[in-house]
Order: sequence, then structure tokens, then C-alpha cells
Amino acid sequence: MIIRDQPTPLALFFTMQGSVVPRILPQIIAVTMLSAAIILVDRLIVDLPGISLSAIGVFGVALSLFLGFRNNAAYSRWWEARKLWGALIGDVRTLARHTVIFLPDGPDRAQFLKTAVAFAHLHRSFLRGDDVANDIAGFDALTRARNPADAALRDMGRQLARMTEADGFGRLAIARVLGDLGMSQAGCERIATTPLPFVYSLLVRRTTYLYCLFLPFALLDAGGLLTPLIAAIVAYVFFGLQAVTNELEHPFSDGSNGLPLSAMCRVIEISVAEALNEAPPEPLQAQDAVLM
Amino acid sequence: MIIRDQPTPLALFFTMQGSVVPRILPQIIAVTMLSAAIILVDRLIVDLPGISLSAIGVFGVALSLFLGFRNNAAYSRWWEARKLWGALIGDVRTLARHTVIFLPDGPDRAQFLKTAVAFAHLHRSFLRGDDVANDIAGFDALTRARNPADAALRDMGRQLARMTEADGFGRLAIARVLGDLGMSQAGCERIATTPLPFVYSLLVRRTTYLYCLFLPFALLDAGGLLTPLIAAIVAYVFFGLQAVTNELEHPFSDGSNGLPLSAMCRVIEISVAEALNEAPPEPLQAQDAVLM
Amino acid sequence: MIIRDQPTPLALFFTMQGSVVPRILPQIIAVTMLSAAIILVDRLIVDLPGISLSAIGVFGVALSLFLGFRNNAAYSRWWEARKLWGALIGDVRTLARHTVIFLPDGPDRAQFLKTAVAFAHLHRSFLRGDDVANDIAGFDALTRARNPADAALRDMGRQLARMTEADGFGRLAIARVLGDLGMSQAGCERIATTPLPFVYSLLVRRTTYLYCLFLPFALLDAGGLLTPLIAAIVAYVFFGLQAVTNELEHPFSDGSNGLPLSAMCRVIEISVAEALNEAPPEPLQAQDAVLM
Amino acid sequence: MIIRDQPTPLALFFTMQGSVVPRILPQIIAVTMLSAAIILVDRLIVDLPGISLSAIGVFGVALSLFLGFRNNAAYSRWWEARKLWGALIGDVRTLARHTVIFLPDGPDRAQFLKTAVAFAHLHRSFLRGDDVANDIAGFDALTRARNPADAALRDMGRQLARMTEADGFGRLAIARVLGDLGMSQAGCERIATTPLPFVYSLLVRRTTYLYCLFLPFALLDAGGLLTPLIAAIVAYVFFGLQAVTNELEHPFSDGSNGLPLSAMCRVIEISVAEALNEAPPEPLQAQDAVLM
Amino acid sequence: MIIRDQPTPLALFFTMQGSVVPRILPQIIAVTMLSAAIILVDRLIVDLPGISLSAIGVFGVALSLFLGFRNNAAYSRWWEARKLWGALIGDVRTLARHTVIFLPDGPDRAQFLKTAVAFAHLHRSFLRGDDVANDIAGFDALTRARNPADAALRDMGRQLARMTEADGFGRLAIARVLGDLGMSQAGCERIATTPLPFVYSLLVRRTTYLYCLFLPFALLDAGGLLTPLIAAIVAYVFFGLQAVTNELEHPFSDGSNGLPLSAMCRVIEISVAEALNEAPPEPLQAQDAVLM
Repeated sequence: MIIRDQPTPLALFFTMQGSVVPRILPQIIAVTMLSAAIILVDRLIVDLPGISLSAIGVFGVALSLFLGFRNNAAYSRWWEARKLWGALIGDVRTLARHTVIFLPDGPDRAQFLKTAVAFAHLHRSFLRGDDVANDIAGFDALTRARNPADAALRDMGRQLARMTEADGFGRLAIARVLGDLGMSQAGCERIATTPLPFVYSLLVRRTTYLYCLFLPFALLDAGGLLTPLIAAIVAYVFFGLQAVTNELEHPFSDGSNGLPLSAMCRVIEISVAEALNEAPPEPLQAQDAVLM
Repeated sequence: MIIRDQPTPLALFFTMQGSVVPRILPQIIAVTMLSAAIILVDRLIVDLPGISLSAIGVFGVALSLFLGFRNNAAYSRWWEARKLWGALIGDVRTLARHTVIFLPDGPDRAQFLKTAVAFAHLHRSFLRGDDVANDIAGFDALTRARNPADAALRDMGRQLARMTEADGFGRLAIARVLGDLGMSQAGCERIATTPLPFVYSLLVRRTTYLYCLFLPFALLDAGGLLTPLIAAIVAYVFFGLQAVTNELEHPFSDGSNGLPLSAMCRVIEISVAEALNEAPPEPLQAQDAVLM
Repeated sequence: MIIRDQPTPLALFFTMQGSVVPRILPQIIAVTMLSAAIILVDRLIVDLPGISLSAIGVFGVALSLFLGFRNNAAYSRWWEARKLWGALIGDVRTLARHTVIFLPDGPDRAQFLKTAVAFAHLHRSFLRGDDVANDIAGFDALTRARNPADAALRDMGRQLARMTEADGFGRLAIARVLGDLGMSQAGCERIATTPLPFVYSLLVRRTTYLYCLFLPFALLDAGGLLTPLIAAIVAYVFFGLQAVTNELEHPFSDGSNGLPLSAMCRVIEISVAEALNEAPPEPLQAQDAVLM
Repeated sequence: MIIRDQPTPLALFFTMQGSVVPRILPQIIAVTMLSAAIILVDRLIVDLPGISLSAIGVFGVALSLFLGFRNNAAYSRWWEARKLWGALIGDVRTLARHTVIFLPDGPDRAQFLKTAVAFAHLHRSFLRGDDVANDIAGFDALTRARNPADAALRDMGRQLARMTEADGFGRLAIARVLGDLGMSQAGCERIATTPLPFVYSLLVRRTTYLYCLFLPFALLDAGGLLTPLIAAIVAYVFFGLQAVTNELEHPFSDGSNGLPLSAMCRVIEISVAEALNEAPPEPLQAQDAVLM
Repeated sequence: MIIRDQPTPLALFFTMQGSVVPRILPQIIAVTMLSAAIILVDRLIVDLPGISLSAIGVFGVALSLFLGFRNNAAYSRWWEARKLWGALIGDVRTLARHTVIFLPDGPDRAQFLKTAVAFAHLHRSFLRGDDVANDIAGFDALTRARNPADAALRDMGRQLARMTEADGFGRLAIARVLGDLGMSQAGCERIATTPLPFVYSLLVRRTTYLYCLFLPFALLDAGGLLTPLIAAIVAYVFFGLQAVTNELEHPFSDGSNGLPLSAMCRVIEISVAEALNEAPPEPLQAQDAVLM
């Protein structure tokens, strides 16, 4: 995730970091050149059939609505994913607090909370494919399970079952927090394994291409010599929004718009270390304005 | 559900899998031919009364808003259905964990969790009409009930009532998870049995047809010879969105946009098998990019 | 609620069931005739002052947004009402399961669950004015209360208080489900007694009328001889959406878009009968495609 | 809150009750007169610079979106406030039921529930400034606190703490309902003390004024002699929506769109009276179609 | 947060407090001057290529939708932050009530609740960078932790663990409220540390600049001599909405649209003081209409 200030107006147009321009440059160039070619043919060779701008205007309104919907849906996924990780952080802290309230201090408690940290790393590994071998030292056995993060939670359940000093209230309270952690995990898995419906994506992308193909004809008279420039900008706006949407649709990617899973795992490590009276590690810092 | 990468720009227009084009081809062809016929009559036989494009523009804005609403509503149903199944998965895992924490290991526990797996299959059978006889071996008696999935949950309640070794805390915690499973089940049943209001669907479909019937008249002057092509594209956009909406409205269909209920039942089987220290089955794979 | 397949394109325009056309026919006819009269006066008698279509276009955008908002709000009410009844069904099933887990089998349990069925019928009677005397045989005393459904829940509380064999855990779990039932009930009462704000409805309706009054003037030049037809269609779209909205705003009406409260009460009866090992009644079927 | 049927089409334009027209009449008149003046100057004295309607069209789309957003936000506040009061009603009923389940019958129970009624009145007094001295007879001491409604809940906590016959389960269940009441209370306080952001309101209002100032210039050619009438209607639509929004933004006002807090407090009184086997008071009736 | 009445129509255009005009003045001036320069060049020196307004109209619709989305997202963040603080207030009051119900009166209880007040101040300090040294007298040790607010909650957990007179029910109920407080805290941290996606912000800002650069060309013919004025207003609307959005995106800023964290901490102090029968402090008052 990019963490940086808004660029100044001047820098705005030359900032490439976090921009979608590199990815949609082929489309922008194609639309611009097509547009220029159409203008040249129309002016020098043969009159091309023009379309009224209004005709394409309704089309543009529909396209805006489609892209707007997709954008809303993608952003909701991204923000829900962030909420689920926020809940994960809160739940691990609650777990640390609950063990203080309901369990005696001791090695059992430390092992229990460290399994929670391993859970977070294993969950991150599932979502983003990170290699977390170094982060889960001592918990390698969990990776043998099909779903290692679920195995970590199950292992915590087993540890809790073995703690004979825990009374019913403590088991009830702690088991519920484990349940909440599991629901947040299942929510993230849902987002990671269920893309936006393919059919929809097909419709929107085809419409965008068709719109950009027809636009130059509509601009033959209305746009004048600025036509290629206008076509380029329209292509930037519509293909750009589509590219943004594709990024936000996958909140667990390691791209510049992915959620900072590593940094959030570190926040969990810090909370657990402090709860165990151990020296907490440093928070992760953004590298080149990108927080992983 | 289709699981595949975005097609390249070139492949985009020839991909038929997951596309709505086959289903709306009659409408597209009808609109195109009507449009061509109107142009020919107007140019060759008799001047037809034209309509200003602006007149039809407001109409188009209204139609975009209608379709946008229907699309939002349908997608919300689809996504809510996915959320409910995600919650089902999380709840079964919580059930497995709770039985570890609150119940002794043994055959009762295995039977209890296997009933949960049968519940998932029976629920899938209700929603999608799947034949699940092979998946619920040993639980055939449940299918005699009007609502077999509800019967499975009730049976789990009876098993829990018979486990004398479970204390009040355990019964409280496990009964609550059964309640959560029942609420997710009721939520899916709600979506499956309650379509979007019929009156609304009538209004939107009629408006789409009327719009496509009038568009050629509005394009008589503005669209020029490209009129049939424009009409075809507009028909593609509006009928296409309507077809997408009809698919997403029914998230439990077995079409290419239906939710992968079988694959999710398999995820539940894997979680339960691992919780019982049994060999988990393989996850379901997509066949021809379609995950069932 | 209408339960039927989408009509074919041909049948689409002649289906009257579930259509709003009968209710808005006076408005459509009035607008069409006004429009025709204006055209005739303009062509035959005296030039009427025209308005540019763009002038009325902005107006149309605003109107679309207003109607879109009202439609969203009305549909949300309708869907929330359905969610609340879905929760009611799930909660009664949970109640049946909880009584198995926490209470001994016996007449007390049957009486308790049958009071829950009576609750559902009394709640339906409050919402839709149904005569439920036959459905609540044995529970007539409850109807003497101001809020009979609330009285049914209170009576269940009293029954639970008298069951000395229920331990604290059981009472806690069951009392909580009663609380959930009460919240769903209060939610339905909220929707039934609180219409959308009157002031808003006044603004939208007035705007629709004004728009349809001015449209013919704007179409004087742009619409040509098709003007009355266009005006009729626009009236159909805008008055139609308004009529749909008015129906969905009241999800507990017994019209063709009201929720099938009777059928849902029957679902509850079936679940309770099965939980008590009694023969369940048949599910309600749609009559002429309408499920009550 | 106004409770009345939709007026007939004819009555629609002359209904003043609940209409925003009286409040925005100055603006409508000002815009109409400005418009007429501009037309006169343009026709009789000197050609004024016209603006193309399209130029102002984009502006109109933006304004529609702004007002649409504000309207959504205001309605959400209004509806959330109604939901919170609905939850209050449901929670007081749950409290009544819980005291039956967990507490012995007797004067303690009556006092406890009557404090809940006082809580509702005190909360209403905070939100709407009502004088509730008559409604809280016997609980005047609570009004000495900074937040009397919170003091009522705290007093209920103290009463519960003193009831030695209540076991842990009862205290747990009842304390949780008190917590829910407190959260609903805090939610209403949030809505009452936090208006929509001032900066936003400034932007929208200024834009509306600017739009209405420029509109006459854009209508110089397009609107013809109907210009003042069109300007008046546009002013009605945009200022009207703004006025509606301002009303709904404050759901606890005692205006004609405020929530019927007194009637809802009466519903609570009825529920508590019936739970205590006392004669319930009559429900409040609307006076001149306004329910307080 | 600005707390003041709506300005009168006349004052509306001269109110600078809370207005975004000062911040976007450079952009407005730049657009106005560019526009004037283009007009002058076109009229006096050389005919510039014009663009049809419709061409830029679609662009404007897209821009409106983008800004609308960003605005919705930013306002949702702002309102969610307010909700979380409202929940914080409610939870602290519940904590006060719970300690009455479940704990004996005494110094332990006072210390416990005062730690909750310190938690609120430390949380505010994290979010807004406030110096809260004076507000947390006696709790300075907490600031040594990486996350002092989390440390305060953990300390409350330790205090609760030491209270031997608290039974299981009390520990269960109070531990759950601590969990709720921790979730609200994590929610605020989420909003504070996760800006809206950078890529999106880049796209919207670039589009706004491009739109304002091209607008003068489109207004060459349509806008006439009023072109610079129209351009200035459009710049005001679009840059203004962007500036509003930037403010609301950061609900914990100390600007005039930031949430009144200090005032809400004071509300918490008052509730705790009253619960402890101590003299409550005065509520914070707005200074120059700004409540901090």
C-alpha cells in the first residue's frame, strides 16, 4: 500500500508511482493512433460516416454507470478486507487480555498467544503467498495441514482444552474469540477466492473497448483537431478506472494497492509481545513509500 | 463459477464462455434488422418521422438508472449468498474447535461433526437441487424430513443433549454455533425462494424493449449509415446487463455464474477431516475453468 | 408475492398480472391526450412557445435521481422486511433446537413451541390485518392484549420461568432467542408503522407531474408526430416507477408484491411440527402465481 | 411525523401540510423575478450574453449528484434514528420478559421496569427538549444528573445489584440488555449532536444558488417566454430537495417530519403496563395527521 | 467540528469559516486566468480549435461519478469514525454500569473506571497527536508502551483478574465490554492508518485538472464572454468537492471538519464521574463555533 502525501499539482502529472498509466499505455496509444488515423482518412481521403455525439452520449452514461458499479464493488471488497484484518488485530488483543483475566500467568499462556501470532502469519501466507517460514519458527508442523491457519486455531483450541486451570467462564470467553478469529479468516478467504463475476467483467470490458472504438467517429466534427487528444484522455479515464478497479478487486495482492499484511502482522506481534512483557519488535516502515 | 484470467484484448471479443451474447443474440439481431429496415424505408421509400436524440436521451438516463439499480440489487444477493456460505464454513470450523474445547475425544464427536458435513450437503441439495445421496452416506434418514438440512441441525441438537459429559458452558457455546448455522441456512433459503419483485422486473424489461424500438428513429439523422451497428451495440449493452442481472439474481443456479457450492462443501469436508485427524479429500478443481 | 417465470418477449407487453399499468392508466392517458392537444393547437391554431429539450433534460436527470433514491429506499424496506421474517423462521427453529438441548421432552416443550407458532400468526395479523382465529386455536387469550404478538413472547417467558428443570444455561440461551424474536418483531412493526417521509413523497410526485406537463412543449419540435407516443412512454416509465415504489414501500400489503406472510408462517408450522415429531402440514402453494 | 394518505392528483398541488413550499417561497420568488427581469432586459434594452444550456447542463448533473448524496445521507440518519428507537422498544420488552424469566414477581420488578419507562422519557427529553416532568413522576431525582437518561440506566444497574435473589445468569442476561439500551441511547445522541459536516453543506448551498443565478442566462434562447416558469420549477426542485434534506437531517425535531418520539414512548408504556398486569394507557393518536 | 447555524442566503457567499475556498483559491484563479487568456487569444490573435460541449459533457458525467464515489467513501469513513466513538462512549457507560452490578463499591472500582478514562485520552492522543499528559495524571506508565491505549485496556484486564470478589459472570460480562472497546479502538486505528487508495486519488485528481484545462476550449463558442466566470464556478464545484473529500477522509484531523475528540472524551469523563458519585466536569464548549 502506498503511503505518501498528495503530490503537488505540478508533480501530479509526472508521478508514475502508484499510477495506472504504465499498465494502460498500450490502450491509450492504440486509441490515440486510431483516432488520428480516422481524422486523416476523413480529411484527406474519403468522408467517413460520422455519428452524432448525443448518440454516443447515452452510451457514455451507461458506461459510467457500469464502471461506477464495478468500482464500488471492488472498493467494498478492499475495504471489507481491511476491516477483517482490523478485526483480526482487535481479536488477538482481546485474546491477550482474556488470557490475563481468565488464565494464570505462565508458559501455557505464552505458547497460546504465540500460536495466535503464527495464525496471523499463516493466514497472510495463504492470502498473499508469502514465505513465512522465518516468522513461524516452532510452528512448522502446522504447515502440513491443508489449511494451516485453521490448523493454528484448532491447535489453540487443543491447548485451551488441556488447560485444566481454566474454568467454564474462561473457556467460554476465549472459545468465542477463537470463533471470531475464524470468521474473520473465512471472510478473507472468501474475498481471496471469489473474484467479481466473470460475466460482468466481460460486459464492462467489451463496452469500454467498443466505446473507445466509436468515439473518434463521433468526434470527427465536434472535436476538431483536438480529437486524438480528447480520445486519449477519455481512454485514460475509462481504461484507468478499469485498471484501478482490477487492482482494488484483489486486496491481498502484493502490488502497490494491496493491503499491508506484513505491517499488520507486525502490529499483532507487538501487541502480543507487550502482553507477555517481552521486548516488542519495531513497526514495519514503508520502503519507497510502499508499506508491505 | 468461472475461474479464469482476464482474456487479452484480442481474445476479449471472441470469448464465448461466460458471455451473455449467446442468450441475447435474438434480441441483438432483431434490433439490428429493425434498425436496418427503418433506415432503408426512410432512405428509399418514405420519410419516417424522426425523434430528437435528446428526447430519447432522458429516456436512456432513466433506463441506465433502472438497470443500475437492478444490477446492484442482484449483485448484493449474489454476494450476500457468498457471505452466508463463507459464514457456514467458518461456523463448521468453529464447531470443530468447540468440540475439542468442550467435549472429550471419541466417536460421539466424530458423529457430531459428520452430521455437520451432511447438513452442508443437504443444504446444497435444497438450494441447487443436487443429488447428494453419495455425500451423505449414513444420514439418509434425514432426507425424509420436509427440510432435511434443518433436520440435520436438529439431530445435532439431539446428539448434544445426549452427551452427558458436556457441561453447561459447552452446551451453551455449541448450541449458539448451531443457531448461527441455522441463521445462515435461513438466509440462503430466503435468497433462493424470494426473487426480485416481479413488478419491477416487468417495468425494466418493457422499458428496455421500448427504448430499443425507438432508438432507430432517433438515429435516423444522427447515426447515419452506422445506425444498425450502433443499435446493435446499444442492444448488447442494455440486454446484456439485463441478462447478467438475471444470472446474478439467482446465486445458487448451476450456471457459469452460480456459486461453487460443491467446492465449498468440499472445503467443509477437508476442515472436518483434519479436525478428526482423518485423511482430508482433495479440493475440487475447476473443470474447463468452471468451479462447481 | 408473484412467483412466475419471466414472460417471453411477445407476452411481455400483454401481461397484466403484477403490472402497474392498470393503476397508472389514467395518468398515461391524460399525458397522451394533453400532448396530442398541444400538438394540434401548435400546428393548426397558434404557435405555442417551445422549450429546448436540454432545458428539460436537466430536470429529467434530477427526476431520475429522485425516483432512483425513492426506489432504493422502498426496495430496502421490502428486503429488510423479508430479512426480518427470514430471521424469525431461523429463530423459531433455533428455539426448537434449544428446547431439545436444554429442556426435557414433554408437554411443556410442545406447549412452548406452539406458543411460538401462535406468535408468528399474531405478528402476521398485526402486520397485514389477517384473521388468524383458526391458526391460533387455544391461544385466544393472547388477543386480549394491546400487542398480542408481544403477549405471546411474554407468555413464553412465563412458561420458561415455570420450567424448574431448566438450568441457568438453558434459561440464558432460550431467553436470548426470545429476545431475538422480539427484535425481529419490533423491526417489522417499525417498517409497518413508519412510511417514507411524507414531505419527500410530495416533492417527488409534484416533480413528476410538472415534468410530464412540460414535456409536450419540449417535444413540439424534437418529437415530431411521435410526440404523444413518446410522452405516453415517458409517463409510463416515471409514473410506473412511482407506482412500483409505492407498492414496495409497504412490504406487508396483501397486494401482488406483498411478502408471503402466510406461506412463511406455514414454514414455521412445518419446522415446529417436525421438531415435535408430529405430521407436518403441506407447504402453501401459489394460487394463480400469487403466494400469500 | 405526518401520517396521511397520498393526496389525489388534483389535491396534490394545493396541499400545504408537510410541504416545503412555504419555507422556500422566498427563493422561488426571487429566482422567478430575476429570471423575468433578465428576459425583459434582454428583449427590450440590451442583448445579454447567453450561455449554452449544455454548459450549464454539466453543472446541473454535478448539482444533482451533490443533492442526491446529501439526501441519501440525511435519510440514512433519519432511518437509523428510527431503527434505534425501534431497538429501544424491543429492548424494553426484552427487559420485561427477562425479569419474568430471571426475577421473582414483586415490587422490585415493577420499580425496575418503571425506571425503564422513565429512561425512555428522559432520553426523549434530551433529544427533543420535551418537558417530561409529568411522565417521570417519582423519578425526578434522575434529572439532577448531567445525562438523566444515563442516570436512569445506572439506577437500574444499582437496583439489579441489590436484588439478591437474582442469580448470575439473570444478572448477566439483564445487564446485557441494559448495555444494548445504552448503545441505542448513545447512537441517538450521536445523531442529535453531530450534524452533517458544515463544509459540505456550504458547498452544496452555494452551488445551488449559483446554478439558479446562471440558469436564466442559459434559458434566454432555449426557454423562450416560459423561462420564468421553468426557472421557478427548477428552483422548486433544487431548493425543495435541499429543504427536505435539512428536515430529515434532524430526525428528532418536532417538525412535521420529526420522529414520533412521544408515540413511541407510549408504546413502551403500554408494553411495560401489560407486562406488569396493569391497565395499559391508550396509544397516542395523530392530531391533524401529525403524530408526535 | 464546526457547530453553527446555516448562514442566511446573503451571508452564505461571504462566510469563510469552514469554507474550502481559501484552500482552492489558487486553482480557481488559475482556471479563470487560463480561460480568459484563451478567450483573448481566440478573439484577438488566432482562431483556436474548439471542442463541442457534448464531447466534454460525457467527460463531466464521468468526473461527477468519480468525485461522487470518492465523496461517498470519505463521508462513510467520517461517519464510521463517529459511530466508533459513539460506541466507545456507550461502552464506557456500560462498563460503569457493569461494575455496579457485578463488583462491590470501593477504590478498585474507581481505579478501574479511571483507567477507562485514561484509555479514551490515550486513544485520542494516538489518533490526533494531542498532548494528553494532563488528562492522564497517574497513568503515565501506560505511555511507555508502543500502543498506550491498548496498554490501558490490558491494565484493566489485569485489575479485573486481581479482583477476587468478582465471580465468573462478572468477569465474563466485563471482559466482553473490554473486548468491544478494543474493537472500536482497532476500528479507529484502521481509519487513521489506511487512507483511500492512492491510485484512485491520482486518477481523480488528474481527471479534474484535465477537465478544467479543456473546459475553456469547449466554452469558446457556447459560453461567450461569461466563459471565465463559468470556468471559475466549475473549478469551484469540482476542486471544492475534492477538497471537502480530502478533509472528511481524515476524520481525526484537528481541522474544522475533524471529529470533536476532546469533547467526546469529556462526555466520557462526565459519565464516569457521575457513576462514581464525584462532581462531573463541565462539558466542552465550542470556541468560535469550533468544537474540538
